[in-house]
This record gives sequence, C-alpha cells and structure tokens, in this order.
Amino acid sequence: MTNETQSRPRPHRVVVVGGGFAGLRAVRSLRGAPVEVTLVDRQNFTLFQPLVYQVATGALSPAEIAAPLRSILRKQRNARVVLAEATGFDLEHREVVLEHLPNRGGSTPLGYDTLIVAGGSRYNYFGHDEWQADAPELKSLAGALDIRSRILAAFEAAELEPDPQLRQAWLTFVVVGAGPTGVEMAGQIAELARDVVRADFRSVDTRAARVLLVEASDRVLMNFPASLSHKATSALERLGVTPLLNHTVVGVADDSVAIRGPAGEVAQKPARTAIWAAGVTASELAARLAEAAGAEVDRSGRVTVEPDLSLPGHPEVLALGDMVRVRAADGSIVPLPGLAPVALQQGRYAARLVRDRLRGQATKPFHYVDKGDLATIGRSKAVADVKGLHLSGFTAWVTWLVVHLFYLIGFQNRLLVLIRWTISFATRGRGARLIVRPPEHSTSHDAADHEPDGLSRRV
Amino acid sequence: MTNETQSRPRPHRVVVVGGGFAGLRAVRSLRGAPVEVTLVDRQNFTLFQPLVYQVATGALSPAEIAAPLRSILRKQRNARVVLAEATGFDLEHREVVLEHLPNRGGSTPLGYDTLIVAGGSRYNYFGHDEWQADAPELKSLAGALDIRSRILAAFEAAELEPDPQLRQAWLTFVVVGAGPTGVEMAGQIAELARDVVRADFRSVDTRAARVLLVEASDRVLMNFPASLSHKATSALERLGVTPLLNHTVVGVADDSVAIRGPAGEVAQKPARTAIWAAGVTASELAARLAEAAGAEVDRSGRVTVEPDLSLPGHPEVLALGDMVRVRAADGSIVPLPGLAPVALQQGRYAARLVRDRLRGQATKPFHYVDKGDLATIGRSKAVADVKGLHLSGFTAWVTWLVVHLFYLIGFQNRLLVLIRWTISFATRGRGARLIVRPPEHSTSHDAADHEPDGLSRRV
Repeated sequence: MTNETQSRPRPHRVVVVGGGFAGLRAVRSLRGAPVEVTLVDRQNFTLFQPLVYQVATGALSPAEIAAPLRSILRKQRNARVVLAEATGFDLEHREVVLEHLPNRGGSTPLGYDTLIVAGGSRYNYFGHDEWQADAPELKSLAGALDIRSRILAAFEAAELEPDPQLRQAWLTFVVVGAGPTGVEMAGQIAELARDVVRADFRSVDTRAARVLLVEASDRVLMNFPASLSHKATSALERLGVTPLLNHTVVGVADDSVAIRGPAGEVAQKPARTAIWAAGVTASELAARLAEAAGAEVDRSGRVTVEPDLSLPGHPEVLALGDMVRVRAADGSIVPLPGLAPVALQQGRYAARLVRDRLRGQATKPFHYVDKGDLATIGRSKAVADVKGLHLSGFTAWVTWLVVHLFYLIGFQNRLLVLIRWTISFATRGRGARLIVRPPEHSTSHDAADHEPDGLSRRV
Repeated sequence: MTNETQSRPRPHRVVVVGGGFAGLRAVRSLRGAPVEVTLVDRQNFTLFQPLVYQVATGALSPAEIAAPLRSILRKQRNARVVLAEATGFDLEHREVVLEHLPNRGGSTPLGYDTLIVAGGSRYNYFGHDEWQADAPELKSLAGALDIRSRILAAFEAAELEPDPQLRQAWLTFVVVGAGPTGVEMAGQIAELARDVVRADFRSVDTRAARVLLVEASDRVLMNFPASLSHKATSALERLGVTPLLNHTVVGVADDSVAIRGPAGEVAQKPARTAIWAAGVTASELAARLAEAAGAEVDRSGRVTVEPDLSLPGHPEVLALGDMVRVRAADGSIVPLPGLAPVALQQGRYAARLVRDRLRGQATKPFHYVDKGDLATIGRSKAVADVKGLHLSGFTAWVTWLVVHLFYLIGFQNRLLVLIRWTISFATRGRGARLIVRPPEHSTSHDAADHEPDGLSRRV
C-alpha cells in the first residue's frame, strides 16, 4: 500500500494470481481503476511463451522474451507485485495463502475483495513424470535453457563419436507433440542441423541429423484447418523433419525413445535428445481453486467457470486462461483453444467486469473474438489462418513476424528481437548458442565404455 | 582432422588448452599456418570477462558477452574445438589427458607437437571456500547469474520486510575487492538501487541501499595511478558506495559479513548479499603443468615461464595469461597486470613463436606494450590511464565504451550491446532483470520466524 492512500478509505482490493498473458493483462487493464491491485507470481518476470522454443534453439536470449513484472507495472500506481506462490485459497474468509515469500518462510494470508486466478497450463507426461529427466518440457524458461544445452551438447558428442550408430543416436532428436510449439521446435532443430551449426564441426556432417515429430492425432497443428496442417507437414518434410502421426511415446530413456505406431507395434528409436511439448494440463492452481469451492476439475485439470468467468457460487472469484473451461448460458462448454489471444481477451474482460461491478453495471458474458491462428515452421515458412483466410509460405511468415513482434512486451525486447531475427535471417546464424551447464552434466552416464581412445585415434 | 589432410603428411599438431583471451587469440593468430590446431575448453563459448559484472546487474544478457568457440573458428579450417577438461599433462609422451568429453566418461589422451596452456585465473577465498555459498564469485557466467538473482531477490525481500533493521540488511550489499571488477560492480549496484529499480517498488525506498566496497590495500584500483584511484573513490562515494580501505573480510554468513578494520577491530555488518571479487589465483592448470614439469608455483598458484613464455626445460610447451609469471633474461620477474591486453598480446606472441620455429627462425622474447588502463564507475563516469594520459569523467567513460565495444567478440554481440547500452543510458533501465531461480532458493533459511503476518498487516 502506498503512503498517500493510507488516509483515504481502503479501496477495493483485487488480487491477481499469475503474471502470464491473462493475469498481467487483467492487471494492466485495471490501470486507473479505483482499486488496489496485487499481482502474485512465483517468478519476477512475465514470459512470452510463444517464443520460448527460440530460446531452446539459441535464436533468442531469455531476457528477450521475458520482462520483469515490476518494470512493466512501475508506472501503474494502483498495482504492486508480490513474489510468492499461492498455495491455497480460503474463499470463505476471502484470503489467498502465500508461501515462499523472498524474505521469510511459512505461509502468509493475503486478503481480497475480488480474486482473479490465471495459473496457465503446463505439459504433463501422461502420468510418467519420470520421463521428464530425459525429455525436458518446452514451456518454461528453465526447460528451454536445459533443452538448448542438450541439443548443442548432442552435436558436440556426435563430433567426437567414431561409432556410426552411436553417432546417429546423438544426431536423432525426438519432439513429442505437434502443436505449434512442437512443430516450430522440430523445424528449428532441422534448420540448426542443416544450416546453422553445419560449418562449426570438422568430423560430423550435421545434415545427417534426424528429427522425429511424434503426434498422437492424425495431423500436425490440430487447431488449424486441415489444408494448412497438410501444408505444414510437407514444409516440415522438406526441412528434413519426419512427422510420425498416429504415434504415441510409450517410454523415454537417456539413449532411446519407445514409440507405438498406429498398428500398435512399439519401436525403440535410438535418440539421445527428446523434447516434450505434449499433454497440456491446467496449472495446479485450478485444482486448489476447485477444491476450495467444492467443484470438480476435468480430465485436463481445468476448473469450469460461468459465462462471466466467475467460479460457480463465488461471483467475486474469476478464473482465466488455459486453466479454465467456460460454460455457456445453455450449460454447454464453449470450445476455446489454449492460445495467448484467448488469455489476453479474458484478462481484459475480467478487468472490465471488475470496473462495471464497482459502477453497479452489468457485464455481458465473455465472448472470444477469433483473430486467427499462426505457426512458423522454419526460416521464411509459416502457416496462418486469419479469419478464414488461409496463408502459407513467406506471406504467412511475415504475418507471423509482425504479429509476434507487436505482442512482444516492451520496446527494448521488440527492438532486440527484431535485430536478432534480422541477423539470423541474413547469416543463418544463432547468437545464443551457449551450453550453460558443465560438460559432464551434458553427457550420458552409461557411455563410458564406448571407444575410450576414439579421439586419440582420430587426432 | 579434416578428410582432405589425411593423404598429406601429418602437419605440426598444436594443442591449445583454454579458450579465453590468451588461448583463443593464439588459435586465431595461427590461422593459415601449416599446423593443425585443437582448442580444448570445458565450455563451448569464450567469455568477455571485463563485462561479466554487467550480466550480474542485468544490464546485459549472457549471450551478449559470450560467443560460441565453434562459430568464431568456423572459417578457420586448420582449427577444431574439443569440449573437454584437461586434467593432466604427460610432457614426456607429449600428450594432454582429456576428461568429461561430451560423448563418454573416462579419460582420453590427446597428442601434441606444441602445447599452449592458457587456463586463466579465478578468485580464491583466502582458504575459506565455504564462504562461496554466501558470497558468489564475480568471474564466471554462472557466478554472475547467481549474483544477479541474489541482488534482485534482496530488493524483493526488502519490499516485503516490515522490520526496519532486517530490511536494511536486505538493502546492504558487500563487494569484496576493489579491482576494476569490484569497483564497477559496486558502482552499478548503487546505480541500480538509486535509479533503476527505485520506481519498481511500492513500500521500500531502494535509495536507502548501502554498498560497502571492502579493499585490503590502501586504495581502489591498485593498478592505476594514485590520482585516478582518488578520482574513482570520490566518484564511488558520490554514487553512494562506501569504500572500506585497509579492511579485510574475516567471515561471511548468509545474513552478515565480518570485516576487520585497519586497527584490527572486527565488525559484524548485517548484509544479505555479498559478492566476491578478490584474491586472484591462477587456474589449477598451472599447478598441473608445474607438477608435470617438476617446477614450482608461486603464492598465487602461477607457474614461472621463460622470456619466450616456454616452460623451463620444455620449449615445446608454452604457458600464457593470468596463470603465469614471466622471467626476464636477467632472471628477475617481469611485472605484468592480470588484464586482457596482456593475455591477448601473449596469445599473439605464442602464435608467432610457433610460426617462426616452423620456419627455423628465432623469435625475440615477449614484450608487453602497455596501452593503458580503463575502469568505469557508473553511468557516464570512468577513469582511464592511456599511455600516461590520465582521463576521468565522461571522456574516460566514452573511451571505455569504445574500447570495450571494439574488443567485444562478434559483430552481432557488439551491435546488441551497443543498443542495450544506449537504451540503458537513455532510460536508466536494465533489460535483463530476471531471477532465474525459484523464489524459495533466494530466501534465507533462518528468516522463518520474522513477522510471519507482516504482509497481511500491510495489505
């Protein structure tokens, strides 16, 4: 609370949990409103998730797709940021339980008049969390940096591996899940191997790299019109990606991935690098919220909210983004994709709802305006479905570029990213190819007995 | 070894251990020479160490001061890179022992005709390595990112800390060592608190932050002329830094630092953040090399080399950079500062020596050309000693800017850094203010009992 407000009557307290697209937009849309906003997040930055995969390939640096929450909100005097984890909700007493505050342990209650929860989603491992050690998720910044180090270390290992079969395993990359993230990641790895790092190595021909894109459904980019999915598939194949449709991963080890095909047959693919971008599940905040309200979550862990995004029986609690299912007036579920535009529109809607209520006005139910879908496959290749207009190739790619730059937070990030992309496009280079872990961590443990003198023989 | 050389007689094999200023310059200066160069490094990138402290303050991103060794050398066909650690030297059989290769465990020998070792230096903790947990070193990229997270988390903690004394401990930063790195770091923290993050916080006034710069000698920047040391001291004081000259750190805990003053009295300074930039010691490679040659290392762990930088009794082994002392023809030790220019000149010299020997020519002893010293204190403040010409203030700062941009590796990095600096200068902002660790790691462990309901009272 800022000093100048202490004398005045206490304003309406809005607590927003989650500083992603939905939560941060809700906070920013409350700028100037007669409320006191507290944004709670475990991290001190907001992440531009659609570009996380570019950090994983070394095309961008973390700071270029992440912006500190405090600097975004520094001029919004009615908002403050608390770095903490919301571990529980006491809907009766209207308090959020905060833990892991930077200056103390234990848990601390935080009171609210309106609560907005936007915890987002994560990838799940079909109940096999143990797979994560060998197939890191491509959603968080930490995951992206881990993946970057593994990909680069795999090329390093291939360079030194004299055994052709073992070398091919180092040059085989399995991407699980063919949503936009999986498709873009697979395309970038293929480009990395074919263009970017090719001249960096002396012994290995990185063009021999294989990228397997495993997808359980019958086409890539399921959210897109079929025609664009097919365009994307052939673009991926031209890049050297092998889409495995109607395939599912049934096992992950550090040197292989077990994949079940459409006929039910299981194949062990020797691969040293696996990347996980499948099985979207709602943040655990959805379950905590549902539990507090005595509600249920669906198979994807999402909580169901009313047409105005409020929790059933708790109009003062709003839930947004990937972690919710929205019920229509007729009781049916409104089909909404788990994309940034939905989250942004819901955040803006939640802010308007709060303002209208304070003015005693009614608000129409939330309505999603679909502006279209975009996905890039590789250098100057993309597919776009803009209001029924189907674009592909260079036009779609430029559209993708402009849209992403436009939504990227912060003038500085935009400028730096634009320059990076320009340079990468011109030089086919990647600026941020840093292995940030000590090399021994990037090696497999059971490889000690492979050709111990292989190097000295080649020297 | 590249395929096209397999038919020809085996060229002279040069193994360079260490991809820092000295080692990388040696490799690059051997471009086009009739040799086969293998660069061995534990990391896949070279680090521009003079700017590491800017990563620690969030002014720059890691990728902006680090460049992948492979992309630097991609066009140099007679050079290859091996990602490994050199754990031993067999001078008799002319082999380096490599470990932690990315594709296998165990150790692998690597033969050489000429060996160039440039392991650089690190900070030591005066025999108290346990202090490192609470006072990370400001030399590696990992250390800088750790320090960045701690500094930012300290402000977060101060924002939430109702107890004035505990809050001041979160706002007190101790920098150990007043060489260029320590001076620049102290100045940047003061600027961060006074200008950059000030408007980010609602409860805490970050201008209350204290920065203690602890230096054992009687002035800052000992390598500089006294007049510039005094200019630097007053510039630091104007920024709000408190230089503690003739003081030494005798203890480090997570909530305080014990400092002994000139009179021998010891004071416990409550401080949550300590940064280590003192006690330069040679890389352990110096000791391994000395051991292999039956030689001694000095108090700072450096090995002594001949006037031509060769190991006594081993003309085929050259040692460069911070890890060596150079003996003059008369047996005396040549006084050389541990700075990048020395390393660069020694790297160039080593390459010329190799070329001359292959041509059967003699080479003059190494001679260091002092181009001057530079250190920046804060926004538009610096001191410079260029060939006896003493600059300070804005002129020195611009000189510093130009020189550092000039030596920064890679066109892309230069451009990005220049833009970052321009933006920071104009907006007094810092782009890369990301806490990359989960918040609980950035909290102290014994703080659980402090005012557990402090937050809820203020909400």
